[in-house]
Amino acid sequence: MISGPVLIVGTGLLGTSIGLALAEDGVVCVLRDLSPAAQNLAHDLGAGVVDDGVVQPALVIVCTPPDLAATCVAAELERYPNAVVTDVASVKGVVERELRAAGADLTRYVGSHPMAGRERSGAAAADADLFAGRTWVLCPTAESAPSAVEAVREVALGVGAFPVTMGTDEHDAAVAAVSHLPQIMASLTAAQLSGTEPEALGLAGQGLRDVTRIAASDPMMWSPILAVNAPALLPHVNAVVQQLTELERALTAASTEGPSADGVMRTLAALIENGKNGVARVPGKHGGAARRYAEVMVLVPDKPGQLGRLFAEVGDAGINIEDFRLDHSAGAKMGVATVQVIPEHADRLARHLDDQGWKVVQ
Amino acid sequence: MISGPVLIVGTGLLGTSIGLALAEDGVVCVLRDLSPAAQNLAHDLGAGVVDDGVVQPALVIVCTPPDLAATCVAAELERYPNAVVTDVASVKGVVERELRAAGADLTRYVGSHPMAGRERSGAAAADADLFAGRTWVLCPTAESAPSAVEAVREVALGVGAFPVTMGTDEHDAAVAAVSHLPQIMASLTAAQLSGTEPEALGLAGQGLRDVTRIAASDPMMWSPILAVNAPALLPHVNAVVQQLTELERALTAASTEGPSADGVMRTLAALIENGKNGVARVPGKHGGAARRYAEVMVLVPDKPGQLGRLFAEVGDAGINIEDFRLDHSAGAKMGVATVQVIPEHADRLARHLDDQGWKVVQ
Repeated sequence: MISGPVLIVGTGLLGTSIGLALAEDGVVCVLRDLSPAAQNLAHDLGAGVVDDGVVQPALVIVCTPPDLAATCVAAELERYPNAVVTDVASVKGVVERELRAAGADLTRYVGSHPMAGRERSGAAAADADLFAGRTWVLCPTAESAPSAVEAVREVALGVGAFPVTMGTDEHDAAVAAVSHLPQIMASLTAAQLSGTEPEALGLAGQGLRDVTRIAASDPMMWSPILAVNAPALLPHVNAVVQQLTELERALTAASTEGPSADGVMRTLAALIENGKNGVARVPGKHGGAARRYAEVMVLVPDKPGQLGRLFAEVGDAGINIEDFRLDHSAGAKMGVATVQVIPEHADRLARHLDDQGWKVVQ
Repeated sequence: MISGPVLIVGTGLLGTSIGLALAEDGVVCVLRDLSPAAQNLAHDLGAGVVDDGVVQPALVIVCTPPDLAATCVAAELERYPNAVVTDVASVKGVVERELRAAGADLTRYVGSHPMAGRERSGAAAADADLFAGRTWVLCPTAESAPSAVEAVREVALGVGAFPVTMGTDEHDAAVAAVSHLPQIMASLTAAQLSGTEPEALGLAGQGLRDVTRIAASDPMMWSPILAVNAPALLPHVNAVVQQLTELERALTAASTEGPSADGVMRTLAALIENGKNGVARVPGKHGGAARRYAEVMVLVPDKPGQLGRLFAEVGDAGINIEDFRLDHSAGAKMGVATVQVIPEHADRLARHLDDQGWKVVQ
């Protein structure tokens, strides 16, 4: 059980979403933000009550931008000498180092990084389900009290996330590879479209859209993240520059001597092959939803009314469809319907549909 | 009307898909492939009849890998002195230059590039709908006869694509920016995951999956494409190397002097900002499907049986659902169902659902 009251400092996307999620569990949060508008919006959305300065929180969750995190955590540790304090900044080593340098009480501090976000920011984009099924990284310090770690773990579980414990360096290296470098590469790819003719952009397909989707992110959010995680990012950026420099050489040779110039194919094939090997290591290619809900896959004949029958029979079983996808190729006379339901309902749904004569894909 | 017979040389993904799509229009295609297995598979799938060497085609579509395209086009122009010949290679300048150097009859040649593909290759992945709603670029030579251009345009229309005419240089510059550079960047990003710990990969989110999805592509398909388009690609690769070198400097300063070192924030914010401006120029952010089918969006209460009722009523209207998506945030008590139908059915479906009391989103 989460022992409240929980004080949320910073009512942006993450802070407000935590408040909404905890409210569903009956935990009342106290909200504080430098911006009265943001604070009131979070309150209006149901994320908690506005801080009156009197409540003594048992737990403080600092949800400010990452470059303010350490300062705010230190201030809250001071202000509430009995409270456990965590933050949700996406780089963890720097926060711990600054707290240590400031002589903060690290027994009551545990770093957090919920692996959730949206391209939109602010309380208006908040969602009680933002963390459902997502990983929530806990980075305890060497001094963190077990009870402090437990208090933060309860919050992660309370909002529906999976808590995972990592060292701060290990965490920062991980997000450099799986989050910060991809952001840089998406932004660089998208930046090259600025000089491109509209006719050329008309040829854009799903590949370009996928590669550049996260380039729409907020520069004010990303700049401090990249700056504070510079030590973990640098080796990746160095490696990419080196490979691009090799590619430059190969493309220059191909331009001047032709595509069959010595070594051109070897360099190009290695580039694509290394990428293919890397992407094969990414777990759960079909995205976060697969972990959030369980999937039941059913073959659906490609003719009118079949999906209606399928859904009517799911409804008859009293099961709610959380998400749904239909895939079919035009050649095939069957589509594959992927029905996502809460995990507890998956087996019963599969049996029910099988009983009704549907071909359930195992 | 397409005047057949149409000879398809190379029965991989594109060749077989063209055959399947033209078969739906009643055009019989003649199939030829160096691999008897590939040729027979395409025939079995219904893409056409196997070439007996006797049929005199009116149109030849060369669907070989791009490094063979010019040689094959030249051979077919020779072999069938009355036929129009096109190819589907994804780089166009090199094909025209090689044909010109070989003294081929350019009045009967028109280059093509259908902007369609899949991560899987080969006849087995073929789909009659592969080109539906996609752009099909026509690159006539200065000598191409208007009747030859018209013949190829008819094929594009016949398979459901939108024909667009471009010069070869303009085309090659466009695909360098919207297709080839994104492939390189996705592959480089994915390659950096090879040395990453499994625990770190567990933190992967949708952002990483999107950026690296096309890194799963085939090195044998991509290497020749990148090599022959080297002249158009080089300026983009040069620009990216330059920006990454600036980034390296900023990250080095941030690592040694701290995140507030001079110029760090300016460099990082410009990187993300430039990407944001670039991605904003990409048309139709919601992907190709929106053009292929028409979308009808309906609000769906978040309780069991509602989707069943919706689909039953779509079925009652005799309308087939081509694709479907359900989006809902946990806060909201409504989901938004996006029903994709063939464009001719969209208005009727919207009216029908409105009549049945559904809230159709305009």
